[in-house]
Amino acid sequence: MGPLVVIGGNAAGMSAAAEARRTERALPITVLESGPDASYSACGIPYVISGEVAALGALVTAPPEEFRRARDIDVRTGAEVTGIDPAARRVMLAGGDEVPYGALVVATGARPVRPPIPGAHRPGVHVLRDLRSARALEAALAPHVRPRAVLVGSGPIGLETAEALLARGAHVTIVEIAPQVLPALSPVAAAPVAAALAQAGVRVRTGATVAEIAGDADGLVVVVDGDPVPADLVVLGTGVAPETRLAAAAGCALGDRDAIAVDRRGRTSVPGIWAAGDCAVAHHQVLDRPVWMPLATIANAQGRVAGRDAAGGEARYAGAIGSWVSRFRDVAFGSAGLDEAAAAAAGFTPRAIAREGRDRSGYMPGVLRVLVRLVWDEPTGRLLGAQMAGEAAVAPRLHTAAAAIGASMTIRALAESDFAYAPPVAALRDPLELAAAAAIGDAR
Amino acid sequence: MGPLVVIGGNAAGMSAAAEARRTERALPITVLESGPDASYSACGIPYVISGEVAALGALVTAPPEEFRRARDIDVRTGAEVTGIDPAARRVMLAGGDEVPYGALVVATGARPVRPPIPGAHRPGVHVLRDLRSARALEAALAPHVRPRAVLVGSGPIGLETAEALLARGAHVTIVEIAPQVLPALSPVAAAPVAAALAQAGVRVRTGATVAEIAGDADGLVVVVDGDPVPADLVVLGTGVAPETRLAAAAGCALGDRDAIAVDRRGRTSVPGIWAAGDCAVAHHQVLDRPVWMPLATIANAQGRVAGRDAAGGEARYAGAIGSWVSRFRDVAFGSAGLDEAAAAAAGFTPRAIAREGRDRSGYMPGVLRVLVRLVWDEPTGRLLGAQMAGEAAVAPRLHTAAAAIGASMTIRALAESDFAYAPPVAALRDPLELAAAAAIGDAR
Repeated sequence: MGPLVVIGGNAAGMSAAAEARRTERALPITVLESGPDASYSACGIPYVISGEVAALGALVTAPPEEFRRARDIDVRTGAEVTGIDPAARRVMLAGGDEVPYGALVVATGARPVRPPIPGAHRPGVHVLRDLRSARALEAALAPHVRPRAVLVGSGPIGLETAEALLARGAHVTIVEIAPQVLPALSPVAAAPVAAALAQAGVRVRTGATVAEIAGDADGLVVVVDGDPVPADLVVLGTGVAPETRLAAAAGCALGDRDAIAVDRRGRTSVPGIWAAGDCAVAHHQVLDRPVWMPLATIANAQGRVAGRDAAGGEARYAGAIGSWVSRFRDVAFGSAGLDEAAAAAAGFTPRAIAREGRDRSGYMPGVLRVLVRLVWDEPTGRLLGAQMAGEAAVAPRLHTAAAAIGASMTIRALAESDFAYAPPVAALRDPLELAAAAAIGDAR
Repeated sequence: MGPLVVIGGNAAGMSAAAEARRTERALPITVLESGPDASYSACGIPYVISGEVAALGALVTAPPEEFRRARDIDVRTGAEVTGIDPAARRVMLAGGDEVPYGALVVATGARPVRPPIPGAHRPGVHVLRDLRSARALEAALAPHVRPRAVLVGSGPIGLETAEALLARGAHVTIVEIAPQVLPALSPVAAAPVAAALAQAGVRVRTGATVAEIAGDADGLVVVVDGDPVPADLVVLGTGVAPETRLAAAAGCALGDRDAIAVDRRGRTSVPGIWAAGDCAVAHHQVLDRPVWMPLATIANAQGRVAGRDAAGGEARYAGAIGSWVSRFRDVAFGSAGLDEAAAAAAGFTPRAIAREGRDRSGYMPGVLRVLVRLVWDEPTGRLLGAQMAGEAAVAPRLHTAAAAIGASMTIRALAESDFAYAPPVAALRDPLELAAAAAIGDAR
């Protein structure tokens, strides 16, 4: 077996390299990262901007030297791959160097999409995707005491950015084209987040479009539905697209949303090339087909599978259901599985119910609430999706829903689960149980 | 159908009565409660003692008048049943009154067991089971600024009582006959609790027996392994036994641990008599047989089933796995499903693994940890049990394990669940996922 080369030094790439090393002690492993940084938590960037985490350096899991020393993995930053030659099994680098491979893992991630708005590329208009863009935003914030910031888009990363900018004293306006914030959530699940935004003094303009961004870094004007909104900086949270140029040029077939098509072992259509992470599709456990789900958890798990398989080990990706969670100040929110539209499109007959519940007995101090919305298939009772929002612990409750959805549990089985109870730490009936019980007519 | 009579006005009894009312609008329903209080949360008593909840009255869900007015349920406190005549379908009350029934639900609960220790019935030796015993303990505490308290037994309720007494300024000594505190948990899962007890200044004597309790309410002496330990009060947390005297005298067959035998509809062996709650067995989903599990959650669910069935509705108890959770100060702990001994006794080939993990990304402020110990059946991979302890949210993670155990999920399926992640609210790999992944050799 020839050397293993990984393109991309983040979630999927580094977990592929690390797992390949665990699989094969003697295999030469090289990671080629085009940027100046490798192996960091991009998801943590908002918390550096906010000041909760001291410095961007804290997000780096381990520096390249550490990978070299402890795992014999050659991590090269600033190594920009310009092409892949699958016949000769080598990659070409900017500058002319070539790197031969026996197996290649493409982990090129996703890139931010700048919407087709005049001025979207002006100085002062930011995206937040990697440490470089984080440093640029940091530099843009530095001169201001109370910067005026406009965020375009109100997805989870947009809201995390809003929280960070508020912590830096910013006056924040969010422009969202959909009729509500967090359009990935149903209105009832997004409502507690909308309330938290309002309480935080964020100006939210929903159902609004940005016609143009005028001005320059010394003073921008965002034209929102005809109104000029002055801004010191703009952050675009308008989504990402899979970064597939290298793989596509090498002949790798593309799949859902033009992400790189891979099988359950992470193999692309081109022999000797694997792909993993935000650049590739992933098996969806409920839809039972490959879907593009750009999430760090999936990148991490897919990376391990591709790395092991590429190193000659045996691995099969179990699949995912698109679980994600986020937080705006005290309100956490997230989703697992399908919403009704996706469920209906997949041939299910979805029904949905929402219930709010408490995280402990009502007579205890410090009661926190969480709203749980469940989607299930009416004829079979199969649980298909869950959305939650509230001040109580949302992530571990989403975990319960995710395990249940992944295991094809019925909503009745979830309602009849034996959930533990104690007044200070758990309600007699957990909000998740209440919602499931209401779905089967067993909670009034 | 004749009138429905319920013996016992707490968790099982009141949920039986309420569900019967939902099932049958016109049915006469009477609840006979021997004590002065009905429909209260016994589990909340420690938090009244501690002062976290203002008064015992806050634990009462609704007073008898409210049940009468809003649900047409006749709740009679101080109504002590002395016998059941199943042939004539009537119950006899102290004082000579008789109450006829068409259907009878026995929800007599459990009573504290006082161990066969000389002096265990002395004044100043308390149990904590109902509002009456709580008032007695309150009265005993009142004259003391820094009472010396000895707790015998270190189960969940013993530890909740220890926390409450500490909050009242008590000097607390725990005497536990087992070699560790919380003998229901494995040593590794009990360790964080033992550490919290030590930090709180609780004197813990494990592997120790109480030979005698001497003295009186003005000053007790607890003889522990030959040492005289002076005490202002003693609380016995030495377990409970099912209260079955009335049902047994009426001919109801007894089952596991001499609790009342019931089927999945809550019916006893005597026609016209149902039973539910701490006095009765409950179907165990993993063991697939009736087991005595005196837990408020089970009482609540069984009560609903028995109430609906007795009122002519259709109901079937889904079963339970013995999930419980508790808290000592900042450390929550609990269990769901089987430990290794119970698994082996049931014919499984158990294996176990423990991992500690974080509740968010390691670089975020406020990281909390939780230890997760999983038990599974080696040949089939089926998840059988989970124990957890730590400062991170334990209850919702136990919920995930409980749903997985109830659904007969394998430990691999749990490890491969798609758990959501965001740095401030969820680790890239949740402690539960880490433990499951370690079990299948997928986390190093």
